[in-house]
Amino acid sequence: MTNNHDVAGLQRRLAEFAAARDWQPYHTPKNLVAALSVEAAELLEIFQWLTPEQAERVMDDPESAHRVADEVADVLAYLLQFCEVLGVDPLEALAAKIDRNEVRFPVRRRGDSDGDRHSSE
Amino acid sequence: MTNNHDVAGLQRRLAEFAAARDWQPYHTPKNLVAALSVEAAELLEIFQWLTPEQAERVMDDPESAHRVADEVADVLAYLLQFCEVLGVDPLEALAAKIDRNEVRFPVRRRGDSDGDRHSSE
Amino acid sequence: MTNNHDVAGLQRRLAEFAAARDWQPYHTPKNLVAALSVEAAELLEIFQWLTPEQAERVMDDPESAHRVADEVADVLAYLLQFCEVLGVDPLEALAAKIDRNEVRFPVRRRGDSDGDRHSSE
Amino acid sequence: MTNNHDVAGLQRRLAEFAAARDWQPYHTPKNLVAALSVEAAELLEIFQWLTPEQAERVMDDPESAHRVADEVADVLAYLLQFCEVLGVDPLEALAAKIDRNEVRFPVRRRGDSDGDRHSSE
Repeated sequence: MTNNHDVAGLQRRLAEFAAARDWQPYHTPKNLVAALSVEAAELLEIFQWLTPEQAERVMDDPESAHRVADEVADVLAYLLQFCEVLGVDPLEALAAKIDRNEVRFPVRRRGDSDGDRHSSE
Repeated sequence: MTNNHDVAGLQRRLAEFAAARDWQPYHTPKNLVAALSVEAAELLEIFQWLTPEQAERVMDDPESAHRVADEVADVLAYLLQFCEVLGVDPLEALAAKIDRNEVRFPVRRRGDSDGDRHSSE
Repeated sequence: MTNNHDVAGLQRRLAEFAAARDWQPYHTPKNLVAALSVEAAELLEIFQWLTPEQAERVMDDPESAHRVADEVADVLAYLLQFCEVLGVDPLEALAAKIDRNEVRFPVRRRGDSDGDRHSSE
Repeated sequence: MTNNHDVAGLQRRLAEFAAARDWQPYHTPKNLVAALSVEAAELLEIFQWLTPEQAERVMDDPESAHRVADEVADVLAYLLQFCEVLGVDPLEALAAKIDRNEVRFPVRRRGDSDGDRHSSE
């Protein structure tokens, strides 16, 4: 993994990219979180009319695969820029969340008959 | 940075977490992308009634700061799980997108008078 | 249909409701459109882990049915308030859009073999 | 207001439009709610880089005004189709929600010093 491909390296490239184009005034927390949710919706748009089975095979078509990767990049770009301007470490935040969820959703032993509902994590 | 805090390590923890709770049947690409966009909207919700100035200071309040980090974690969790089930490398996708954008949005030299519109990246 | 149940009557009630609580300063176009998209995501959240078959039966459970109607109300409330502050007539906008789409997506005669892809309207 | 411009008339036109193009198989509740949230995000996209002041003036530019009306139409179209397939009356749902909110958020008398926070309705 090259230096540019870790999260900190990508955040640096994104910050330099925005600075070179004088885009920082637009990159307020409120604007970036709006852009993040717009890009997540654009990723969803690719799947909105697909059956679950078609959705599983979306990467088989090169054009769709490119579109998926492109929207994933946009979502990640805005997430990283949002985190940068607010000083949030996204990897640390996720590691801490998984720790909390391991307590909140204990693994049931086999044979337990209690509820089986999938919870929003 | 510990092993658990890099992207691959977090993807592994998320996959083990879901497997231990038999949640994989729910984690289809179409469901995960819907969940991703829902979580991005929940992050936006924190900011929806704030002025731009209030939004800049959202991390000053410990409760809001925790809520932001928590929703960032959810967005990243679903993004990584979506990428995992479809075999997309999110860091590679973003690095490739920045490469393309450097061509698509060349840096203007000072004194250029051409358009000044911020583009969606 | 009572007077309160037509779109103009509901817009009037929403405007009076916000005015009585001094909420108008929050009800800027940018805030209202963010709130609209958040509420649409909350409606989606109800469906995110359901199979297509479970989703078809969501109104069979009184609690889910209430939740769906409640989120539909929120989406419509923010859409109508957004339209009110910007002076957009949503029914007129939709009628005009259907007119345009009837030209843009002509009905194929039976036997035509051209593309069968569902388009985003 | 002509017959085509009330909500029931628009729902009828949308249903006929979809039926004539054999689009009903795509118009499941889960797909329609995804499409609704995607369209709400596309409306948000128009505003994402605007300052609050620019957002207030978005209808002054004919091209932006058309784009806003067009996305409003899409949001309403999917909301009405979603309601149609699930048998939800959106106007009734909103009227009932306003009734509930009038109880939940009582109007404070002038001089009350209690909290002033805007609540999500």
